[in-house]
Amino acid sequence: MSPLPQHADHAWLRPDAGTELGSRAVALDAAGGLAETVRAELETLTARHGGSIVEPADAAVVLTTAERAEVSADLGALPGEGFALVHGGGRLTVVGSSDRGLLYGYHHVRRAGSGVLDAADGTETHAPTQPIRMLDHWDNVAVHPGMGQVERGYAGGSLFYDNGRLRPNLSRVEHYARLLASVGINRVALNNVNVHALEARLLTDGIGDVVRLAEVFRPQGIAVYLSVSFNSPVVLGGLPTADPLDESVRAWWAGAVDRVYDAIPDFGGFVVKADSEGQPGPFGYGRSHADGANMLAKPLARHGGDVFWRAFVYNHRQDWRDRSTDRARAAYDHFAPLDGTFDDNVVLQVKHGPMDFQVREPVSPVIGAMPTTRLALELQVTQEYTGQQQHVCYLAPLWSQVLDFPFGDDGAPTVGDIVSGSDDAPSGGVVAVSNVGGDEHWTGHPFAQANLYALGRLAWDPTLDAATILDEWLAETYDDEAVREAVRSIMTGSWQTYERYTAPLGVGWMVRPGRHYGPDVDGYEYTPWGTYHFADRDGIGVDRTVATGTGYAGMYPEPWACRFERPETTPDELLLFFHHVPYTHRLHSGTTVIQHIYDTHFEGVEQVERMVATWESVRDRAPQAVVERVQRRLEEQLRSAVEWRDQINTYFYRKSGIPDEQGRTIH
Amino acid sequence: MSPLPQHADHAWLRPDAGTELGSRAVALDAAGGLAETVRAELETLTARHGGSIVEPADAAVVLTTAERAEVSADLGALPGEGFALVHGGGRLTVVGSSDRGLLYGYHHVRRAGSGVLDAADGTETHAPTQPIRMLDHWDNVAVHPGMGQVERGYAGGSLFYDNGRLRPNLSRVEHYARLLASVGINRVALNNVNVHALEARLLTDGIGDVVRLAEVFRPQGIAVYLSVSFNSPVVLGGLPTADPLDESVRAWWAGAVDRVYDAIPDFGGFVVKADSEGQPGPFGYGRSHADGANMLAKPLARHGGDVFWRAFVYNHRQDWRDRSTDRARAAYDHFAPLDGTFDDNVVLQVKHGPMDFQVREPVSPVIGAMPTTRLALELQVTQEYTGQQQHVCYLAPLWSQVLDFPFGDDGAPTVGDIVSGSDDAPSGGVVAVSNVGGDEHWTGHPFAQANLYALGRLAWDPTLDAATILDEWLAETYDDEAVREAVRSIMTGSWQTYERYTAPLGVGWMVRPGRHYGPDVDGYEYTPWGTYHFADRDGIGVDRTVATGTGYAGMYPEPWACRFERPETTPDELLLFFHHVPYTHRLHSGTTVIQHIYDTHFEGVEQVERMVATWESVRDRAPQAVVERVQRRLEEQLRSAVEWRDQINTYFYRKSGIPDEQGRTIH
Repeated sequence: MSPLPQHADHAWLRPDAGTELGSRAVALDAAGGLAETVRAELETLTARHGGSIVEPADAAVVLTTAERAEVSADLGALPGEGFALVHGGGRLTVVGSSDRGLLYGYHHVRRAGSGVLDAADGTETHAPTQPIRMLDHWDNVAVHPGMGQVERGYAGGSLFYDNGRLRPNLSRVEHYARLLASVGINRVALNNVNVHALEARLLTDGIGDVVRLAEVFRPQGIAVYLSVSFNSPVVLGGLPTADPLDESVRAWWAGAVDRVYDAIPDFGGFVVKADSEGQPGPFGYGRSHADGANMLAKPLARHGGDVFWRAFVYNHRQDWRDRSTDRARAAYDHFAPLDGTFDDNVVLQVKHGPMDFQVREPVSPVIGAMPTTRLALELQVTQEYTGQQQHVCYLAPLWSQVLDFPFGDDGAPTVGDIVSGSDDAPSGGVVAVSNVGGDEHWTGHPFAQANLYALGRLAWDPTLDAATILDEWLAETYDDEAVREAVRSIMTGSWQTYERYTAPLGVGWMVRPGRHYGPDVDGYEYTPWGTYHFADRDGIGVDRTVATGTGYAGMYPEPWACRFERPETTPDELLLFFHHVPYTHRLHSGTTVIQHIYDTHFEGVEQVERMVATWESVRDRAPQAVVERVQRRLEEQLRSAVEWRDQINTYFYRKSGIPDEQGRTIH
Repeated sequence: MSPLPQHADHAWLRPDAGTELGSRAVALDAAGGLAETVRAELETLTARHGGSIVEPADAAVVLTTAERAEVSADLGALPGEGFALVHGGGRLTVVGSSDRGLLYGYHHVRRAGSGVLDAADGTETHAPTQPIRMLDHWDNVAVHPGMGQVERGYAGGSLFYDNGRLRPNLSRVEHYARLLASVGINRVALNNVNVHALEARLLTDGIGDVVRLAEVFRPQGIAVYLSVSFNSPVVLGGLPTADPLDESVRAWWAGAVDRVYDAIPDFGGFVVKADSEGQPGPFGYGRSHADGANMLAKPLARHGGDVFWRAFVYNHRQDWRDRSTDRARAAYDHFAPLDGTFDDNVVLQVKHGPMDFQVREPVSPVIGAMPTTRLALELQVTQEYTGQQQHVCYLAPLWSQVLDFPFGDDGAPTVGDIVSGSDDAPSGGVVAVSNVGGDEHWTGHPFAQANLYALGRLAWDPTLDAATILDEWLAETYDDEAVREAVRSIMTGSWQTYERYTAPLGVGWMVRPGRHYGPDVDGYEYTPWGTYHFADRDGIGVDRTVATGTGYAGMYPEPWACRFERPETTPDELLLFFHHVPYTHRLHSGTTVIQHIYDTHFEGVEQVERMVATWESVRDRAPQAVVERVQRRLEEQLRSAVEWRDQINTYFYRKSGIPDEQGRTIH
């Protein structure tokens, strides 16, 4: 047993914050369900900050729901999960469309403080853009020999499980659920999409553990999901097959689903990784992914549950000699033809790029190719390929860029529009892999809390600016403005900094195989994983054009297909993703590819050096535990950035023979 | 618990072999000690083959010891562990110098058969050249998370331990000890030189397990050794230090050694890996390796025990940017200055090359630089870098080349001479890492049994020819001449075949880091392990010259220092170990370096294809279990060889831009 550290670090829900709301006379005109959660929050907050809970007539702030509120008639139909802020009659009335909207309204007002509390008379309405705002946990119940307690987890062990068992004390999960609700997360998947033997049993004899976790998440309006093995009928049910068209298989799943809902009536549903990286799936029975997903969807539909079916299907035993196979094409090739064949309660979960959460990828063309399928955009809050929470890498700008990408000309529906369903598409949303674990700072690097925060805020409102979200998070997390300014300076642009000192111009990878941390330029070059850069003595990059390459560029609607087809119209940052070019190719920026590699790698390290100095400047002002943790991580980031710079520069100097124009040291 | 398979495969001690000796009237005129082992062998052999055990007067063959034999007076002093074969008076008398010599004489006669039994009258004397003929087991007691039950073991689990405990049934160890005695091995170290927590305790509370193993090895004349942690006084004794000059530390070791000898009076001694790859050592206390070794030697000397102190000390956290540090220099730099400072019962155990058991390395210059130190040549029977018993790689030719290397002009003492002590040097010998495990064929690849056999035979007599040893092993192992001819054809030259398709011209490495199997040309290139090839677009190799490189070449006596200093006089096969040359450099063979790379890699694969065909041709004649095992391994060898060929050729074509003269496919 490894007991968790206490949460001395409350992340952005600090007990000493929320003064403006907490110091007022507040009324709660609602009861039951999540209203009781709001009541508990208000009691704690007002007790702490000198406010009071009063009758509505005496209150400066009234929190209520549409069915109760006198003002409702003027509001019309509030959108689901939304709330209205009504200033008038000398008070602010927060009207939730339901108890869930009430909870979100509470957090909004608590967070916004006087800017909202003291606004002029009038009414404004808030509602989430994305119906699905979900976090996936890649937590294992047992410690996996290769992947540990949490697959791709960089924040200590699991909050849920410890070495084969559910943790007896779930108090940190309670706080985690509060953190998630405060930024609008409404779904959590409780176990790794790679479902090993013990984890498979959560569906059956382990359901008691799921019940206990559901009890913790329920008061925060969060539905729980399980990742299940497609082979469950075989490994759990003892059937000879898991063929989705087999009647005994369908009956087994129907029974299993009924038993889950007997235990957890508001259970969310399943997450499935099938026919991917060794996981079983419908291909094993000659069936389609629609056959597989719909087979699970039917019994879930009877209870209002959903299937999240991952589109991450590709050949991970590719021959590196075979230049015609392109992993980037795989999800599109597999799934685009299936548009329209999935049941209504199937959500296809699509990674934001065609590869695997690299620091820079184009947007997945699958998102624009399935207009009649419910889609969830899959993001990674856990920093698998972006520094593993050793490096500062504020990901909101990356996610904004993805969400804002228009599938067509300017004005065409963006990724955010498409997955939300706001433009007549069926409704989906955003799913992201959590970065939280048993670590005392929750996320390993304390600043990585901002990514979790931003994920929730962007799923709520994709139009929010990354800098605005950062300011919100800073205001809630640190009370010293000099510290906030230092963290703001360190975080802003940190994604591009990470990009500068790692793999250049969209080519991706170049990491240590398996671990995915630290440089290894050729690490994946001759492997079966489909992740190549094809660097030789003359040039580098992957030809994904229609004319001479794999044809991937043609999977986009215009104007993108044409733009990506030619180096001259491809954005610099994606050049090597789409084209194999000579080292002397000149970028739009005016420099050559090779000189760009050298320049960005020197610059990236210099930027990390500035981060170190900036943090040093506030070391007497920030919480001591945070100071030391961040300092150690920045030291590691600098060491790692230097290693990246030197390995990348040396590799390409040895290969190209072209010296740095500025004569800097290349080993 | 994982019970071992029964040894259906008896390796070269097949019950149905030994007919010539076993069918005769044999007498044993000796008793006690190892003579009882000989008695049991003779009883089994004659019962099987129709012979009988009779009184000496009635015997065709008499086995006896020098103290008893009537013929002894004519023999003079027999060398220790030796035996004489005296033909005369109508019989063969085998006279052991002692009971151990008697056992070796028995196996010699059993193996040689009628060629010896029916020889003409006369006397010949046999004795081992190397006093030390030892196998090191890198077996862990507990399964190590990274290294498993046997570190660098490729033959199933451990014969000794199973998941934290000594195996209750040691019958396979009994047969293993017979196999070793039959080829003259006289020492075995029972645990991994990387001593983890549980293994450290073999010295103290785990000594009961060592007693049981000693009981199994003792009847075969094999002394047991333990690898011990230099930090034992701290981790086992609870002392605050392991400083070798601290009196409490010395007292602790003295007590520990006394207790071991109380339990095992003929205990051999210790093996120590100190200050190496993270193992603790005297450097941690500011002491020399002589201080450390002698501190252990003194208490062992009181009981006749030895310390085997490994010279494998180097900086495994080297900066790849630093071209002045050279791992190849490390053992020489650390140990050569200490010559003459070690106690008489310290044996310095020196790897045959300066790096780490690569398929091709120069001989370690340490061996020629310590004339007043007892030296043991360390070899690897386990095929860590030579195909991991998936690939056929008969290593006797490599070992012969090492043993025959003269430290000086022709006629100078060879490595074999130096370590044996035969030329006035203090006596040492040969130590090798075992390739045996719980596998039903003992060694994973059935043909790898030949390496174990050859190791013993070469330690006994370094002048034996590798082909002769192979024939001996074949005669004992397979009874069908067509099978023997096929295996002979597959094994002969297999070391060079492996070299052809892997790293070229002595440059080494290019393997997957950690696992050491399969190609990864840049796998170690930017790591801290000191193992680089420095390939760029113009050339490849490590400059180890005195004039412009690391100076390593100057560590050899003449004529080698001069020969290795210049590419023109460096043997082709070591060119890239000593020199960085252009791809267009012309070898003595007449071809260029780049064309040599292409040619050897195509040839290597073709040779493996011929191995596959050869084995296929006898698949109806060999034992079925062997046929299938070998066939599967040959398939893997071919797959792996193709992968090596393609990755190496592609890597160097991409880097050099020089096409294959023959226009073969390079991907």
